[in-house]
Amino acid sequence: MNRLTGSDGAPALAILGPQATRLVKELDRVFAGWGLAAGAEEISAPPLFPVTDLEKFDVYTNFPHLAFVAGSLDLADDRFKPVEGRFGAGAVSEARYGLSHATCYGAYLFHEGEQVADDTLVTLVNRCFRNEDHYGGLRRLASFQMREIVALGAYEHTRQVLAGFTERIQSFAAALGIDLRREAAGDPFFQRDDGRALMQKLSPVKYEFQYGDLAIASVNTHRNFFGERCGIRLESGEHAYTSCVAFGLERWLAVLTEHFGADLDAALAAVRAAADPS
Amino acid sequence: MNRLTGSDGAPALAILGPQATRLVKELDRVFAGWGLAAGAEEISAPPLFPVTDLEKFDVYTNFPHLAFVAGSLDLADDRFKPVEGRFGAGAVSEARYGLSHATCYGAYLFHEGEQVADDTLVTLVNRCFRNEDHYGGLRRLASFQMREIVALGAYEHTRQVLAGFTERIQSFAAALGIDLRREAAGDPFFQRDDGRALMQKLSPVKYEFQYGDLAIASVNTHRNFFGERCGIRLESGEHAYTSCVAFGLERWLAVLTEHFGADLDAALAAVRAAADPS
Repeated sequence: MNRLTGSDGAPALAILGPQATRLVKELDRVFAGWGLAAGAEEISAPPLFPVTDLEKFDVYTNFPHLAFVAGSLDLADDRFKPVEGRFGAGAVSEARYGLSHATCYGAYLFHEGEQVADDTLVTLVNRCFRNEDHYGGLRRLASFQMREIVALGAYEHTRQVLAGFTERIQSFAAALGIDLRREAAGDPFFQRDDGRALMQKLSPVKYEFQYGDLAIASVNTHRNFFGERCGIRLESGEHAYTSCVAFGLERWLAVLTEHFGADLDAALAAVRAAADPS
Repeated sequence: MNRLTGSDGAPALAILGPQATRLVKELDRVFAGWGLAAGAEEISAPPLFPVTDLEKFDVYTNFPHLAFVAGSLDLADDRFKPVEGRFGAGAVSEARYGLSHATCYGAYLFHEGEQVADDTLVTLVNRCFRNEDHYGGLRRLASFQMREIVALGAYEHTRQVLAGFTERIQSFAAALGIDLRREAAGDPFFQRDDGRALMQKLSPVKYEFQYGDLAIASVNTHRNFFGERCGIRLESGEHAYTSCVAFGLERWLAVLTEHFGADLDAALAAVRAAADPS
């Protein structure tokens, strides 16, 4: 059973029952395993960062509408009592931390100021948060889990990693009998940067893997955006290039629930078989 | 390597490197395994809940100073640009979600409005958040991971579960060579409730397992507080009693790092051996 909760309208949050939890954990084990088998090291980052760190990634320039910040309450004058399920303007005294809306930020901050090998690969999973104008249960949650495999290093490395995992995602979906379309998508990261926006038109930086209209995975190239912003350098002295492969775990759960007619035990068996065809 | 970040003073956040990540995952696997072996079902809850849900647990009456709320930004007039690493009063337009400061809330909300068996047991892990007046690296973080094993049902069940895991925690620590003291502790949950406050003096509701002055695990009884607030009932019609066993994963990491002289591979081997003495 999934408990879906939300203040009004479509559910914004889900508490997953035992079967759904087993399936999400298995999916995460599979995707993490792909990264580890390709040589990734697993790291673990918190789901919030100092606002100064997220600011470096233009979060508050490019996605202010999607942002949740972690605010502390003004303890004076009983203002910390919520009214009708919300704290209004003025009840939050300040916010020094921002909630992450993507998992990969932790990888760039982990390597901040460092020199990395040309073929660096890390994997991590995290809770992510998005302030959407509408929610839709498992398909669009206020908080969800995203596993990522992140490449840092030479440009060619960041491209090869995405090519390899693109194939892997497609064959895994095929083994599950799931019809995934690969679609070029825009990435709002680069909207304020004319050079990169032009580059994006010449060569898309994001491909989504869609089931119907739902993107359940994506591959993304950032050129040297994060390398520059975090001062991550290659042995050559050049800023590192980065790319990432992202899996929205609750969205995979939504698709598998639909595809297997809500028989989550059958879905779990199919995921295990597709992950290890031997 | 642990990357510790903070705006000023002691680090409030930590990004764990590969060795620390392996150790934390293994600790979590061990503690979750204790729950599963005792018959627990694993569920998975988001790290934030509607303010209305947390309000039911007196969070904003008893812990407003510890609370972080997930606020959205006021997009008018460029107020969403942070100034010196923070959003000040007025920049956050509203907050309808609160960040959880304990993992077990998800278990009560999962069973809200339901009838449960007298011997119900669930386990879950989550990111937790606390707005502390000072931080101290892995010992006191703004966001950390807490695994819990939660008993719901008859009063005797909630007591037996705590007794069993008290023994388990003590023998596990002994096998690791870690000197843990068991100390009665106050629980601010009940500070506003005179009947329960009196009960607490007669019979402590919280015991912590402390390494030096650092609590790395605790066992907690709540009598029927959460059963009443969430309308969880037993077959008898009575409100369910609850108790929980909590493990602060980064604090275990801090203690093991100290105990094993920063040799995290040795710590990992010791954890595996202590968990499975056969």
